[in-house]
Formats: sequence, structure tokens, C-alpha cells
Amino acid sequence: MSKNRPTLFTCLSPALLHLYDVNNAVVVIIDVLRATSTIATALYNGAKCVVPVDTVPRCIELGITLDGITAGERDGKVAEGLSYGNSPFEYPETFIANRTLVLTTTNGTKLLHMALAQGKCEIITGAFLNLSAVCDYLVAQGKPVILGCAAWKDRINMEDTLFAGAVADRIQEHFHINCDSTHIAMTLYNQAKNDIFEFMKKNDASHYHRLMNYGLEKDIRHCLTPDLADVLPVYRDEALWRL
Amino acid sequence: MSKNRPTLFTCLSPALLHLYDVNNAVVVIIDVLRATSTIATALYNGAKCVVPVDTVPRCIELGITLDGITAGERDGKVAEGLSYGNSPFEYPETFIANRTLVLTTTNGTKLLHMALAQGKCEIITGAFLNLSAVCDYLVAQGKPVILGCAAWKDRINMEDTLFAGAVADRIQEHFHINCDSTHIAMTLYNQAKNDIFEFMKKNDASHYHRLMNYGLEKDIRHCLTPDLADVLPVYRDEALWRL
Repeated sequence: MSKNRPTLFTCLSPALLHLYDVNNAVVVIIDVLRATSTIATALYNGAKCVVPVDTVPRCIELGITLDGITAGERDGKVAEGLSYGNSPFEYPETFIANRTLVLTTTNGTKLLHMALAQGKCEIITGAFLNLSAVCDYLVAQGKPVILGCAAWKDRINMEDTLFAGAVADRIQEHFHINCDSTHIAMTLYNQAKNDIFEFMKKNDASHYHRLMNYGLEKDIRHCLTPDLADVLPVYRDEALWRL
Repeated sequence: MSKNRPTLFTCLSPALLHLYDVNNAVVVIIDVLRATSTIATALYNGAKCVVPVDTVPRCIELGITLDGITAGERDGKVAEGLSYGNSPFEYPETFIANRTLVLTTTNGTKLLHMALAQGKCEIITGAFLNLSAVCDYLVAQGKPVILGCAAWKDRINMEDTLFAGAVADRIQEHFHINCDSTHIAMTLYNQAKNDIFEFMKKNDASHYHRLMNYGLEKDIRHCLTPDLADVLPVYRDEALWRL
């Protein structure tokens, strides 16, 4: 019975993506702190679309071509030549509505392009801010799912793993799960779910420390809260659009 | 203060090993079901040494050269051309004392050779059966540690992650740990430690199912029990020796 359900796998690092068959699958790009949180927020607040790019020069170039807002950080500061940062709080409706956001995201964009190069798949992005929209879509599609954690320079991180666990935990009955990474992620999420911020703090999550050092506690707390920007970003024509 | 302690990292798949600096480190090769469990058992029961090799032909060749016992499985059966399997129970003292065991282990041997190729490191092997010996050695050495999970064809697995978590949990105060994989593994272990077999069963661990299908419940239970063969296998001159 369960064998007839579509499969669900969790890929905890881009360096493991080659192990999974992305063909005909929905690949969820997960970069909780903070790229996919900011993408959800910008689209929720009415952005026309979000164009993810991997380098600052490409961001500047497309910002001009598309008359878009250029955004991205390096080491916690707005990258030289760009106008805005990676924080969801920078993109309220009054600012972002009907505009195009060109966003540099090293880890997330890399994973997205890897998935597209690896096979014919559909790409969406996920974060706690749009948890329900992601889950509802995956169940409705009924296709194989790969939860793809963007990680940090290929190193597995806690918040992306936690989000993969949150999704898998919510939709597990609709899928066939023969994947230890998924079960590990679900166990982690179930330990953390009552207070994810405290869990990240208590367990010395590397990005908790990195962002706290930049004074970004408010960003972390926001990005770990479910459904505050509950839209579904889907990737088409080199940009993410609200479904 | 904690910055002066040696670092400890957990590498959850051989495909991630390149992210870690193995130079001057002790690399613990972990393949709980069942290669490193069998290695600990054979040495505990008096084997002269264990020679890990990656292919069946190489195993046969070295078995002749070294007058050794050839062992290895493929799909749960003794591989064609070899004499014994991967079960710790096949190597009691009456059989293995003073003999050389030539063991094919796909995942563990691959990881071992990758680590050696990547830098000047010391290699030991670990499993629940020799948990205390591994922990005591790592603390005594005071060198950087990489807990290297052999995984399954590069896919992260639960039992190797659990063992990494058990080691890290026991020795964490002696090391500086800035590694989310390690914290994930420790969380998992702390959830599982009261009954690791039940945890593996409840969470659908892939190797639990694979080995149960081969009728190997006794092997699984044995391999998840701490300190039943508490020796330290160290790799020197292409073999593992009891320290």
C-alpha cells in the first residue's frame, strides 16, 4: 500500500544531491536563514517576482536589465554594489509591491541550479514562514518529493534540517519514506518544535551564533515562525513567482 | 577557553569528507551494521589483525597471500569466493585467535582510503561494541577528531549517525564543537539511547529493515550494545590492529 505512494527524500547538503533522482519530482529548496524566508516574504508582500542569482556582479547586471531591487549580503552586511540586505524585514508591502527583487543567495541558488541541471523537475522554495503552503502543495501534487537543504557551503545545518523535518512530519502519511535523513530530520524537529529558537540556542546551531553576532535575533525568531508569509514560490523562467 | 580545545566534527557521509581537514586529526571510521562491529569483535577475540579491502577479488588475493580468513557479504549472503560473512557471531575466540581476517567492506573501506588520501591522519574504527575504548582514546590523544560515518552508498544512515552522537555526547566537554551535524547526531542519540533497537525500528531505519529481512535481528541487537568488544582498532601498515 505505502509503496504506491510517491517517495519523499531529504537531501541534507547540495553535495549529496546526485544521490537522488530529481526527474518528475518536486524539489523544495530550503534556506531558512534567510534566503527562502525572504523570498516568501517578498512574494507575500506583493513582489512581482524574485530572481535568485549566485553572484554580486550578476545581481547588479540583472538589477539594471530588469529594473529590479538588488539585494544580498556578505558577512552580515549589504554586499558592495547592492542596495538591500537579506532580511525579510526589509521587504514590507509598501516597498516591494509590484517590484522585482534580484537576490544573491550563494547556497540556495547553487542548489537550485544543480537540481535543474540534474533532471526535469519542478522547483519550489520553502521556509517556516510558508510551511503550510509548501505542505499543502506537495500533498496536492502527489509527485515524488525531494526536500533539498541549501546548507552552508555544503555543510549540513540545523535550521534547514529542522524545516525538512517539519514538512516530512506534517505530510508523511501521504508519502513512502525510505530515507534515514528524513527520519533523522523528523526526530530533530519533534524535539525542537515547542520552541525552535531555544532549541537552536541550546544546541549551538552554527547559524544561530553567526546571526546573533550580527545582532539579528529578531530575524532568527521571525524566520523560525510558521506561516507568517504563507505563499508558494514556484520557479519558472528563471524567477520565483507566487503561485 | 573552549576555543583552545581540539575541534570535533561529524561527517555524516563519505561524500562530505572533503569539507573537513583531516590533517593531524584522528578519523573514526564508523560502520555499525556491521563492518566496524565485526572488526572490534575479531580483534577482541584475539585476531592478529583485520585487513579491510574494498573488493571481493582483492579479498581473495590477500586471503591467499596472508594466509587469512576471507570474509564479506553481498546482499546478505557470503560473497562468492569468500569463506565467511559479516556477522560478529562468526568470529569467536576459538576460531579467530591469532588469525588474520581479510574483510571486504564497501562503505567503510572506501571512507578509510578517502581519509588517508586527503591528509596525514590517524585512523581508528568505532562501533557501539567498542564505544568506551574509542571515547577514552580520543580524550587521551587530545587531537582534532573527525567522526566519519561510512553511511550506505553515500546516503546518511541512522545507526552510524547514532554512534557518532553517542561518542560526541560522551566526550563533548573535551572538545570545541562548532558543527551542526554533531549536534544533530547528539540530539538523535539522546532520543534513542534508552533503547536504540526500538528507536531504529520505530523510525524505520533503512538498515533495520534490510537486516531484519535477512533474519538478522540478533546481529542488529548485538551491534547496538555498548562495550561488548571494547578494544581499540588502529590502522597501520594496511591493517587494523588492537592497540
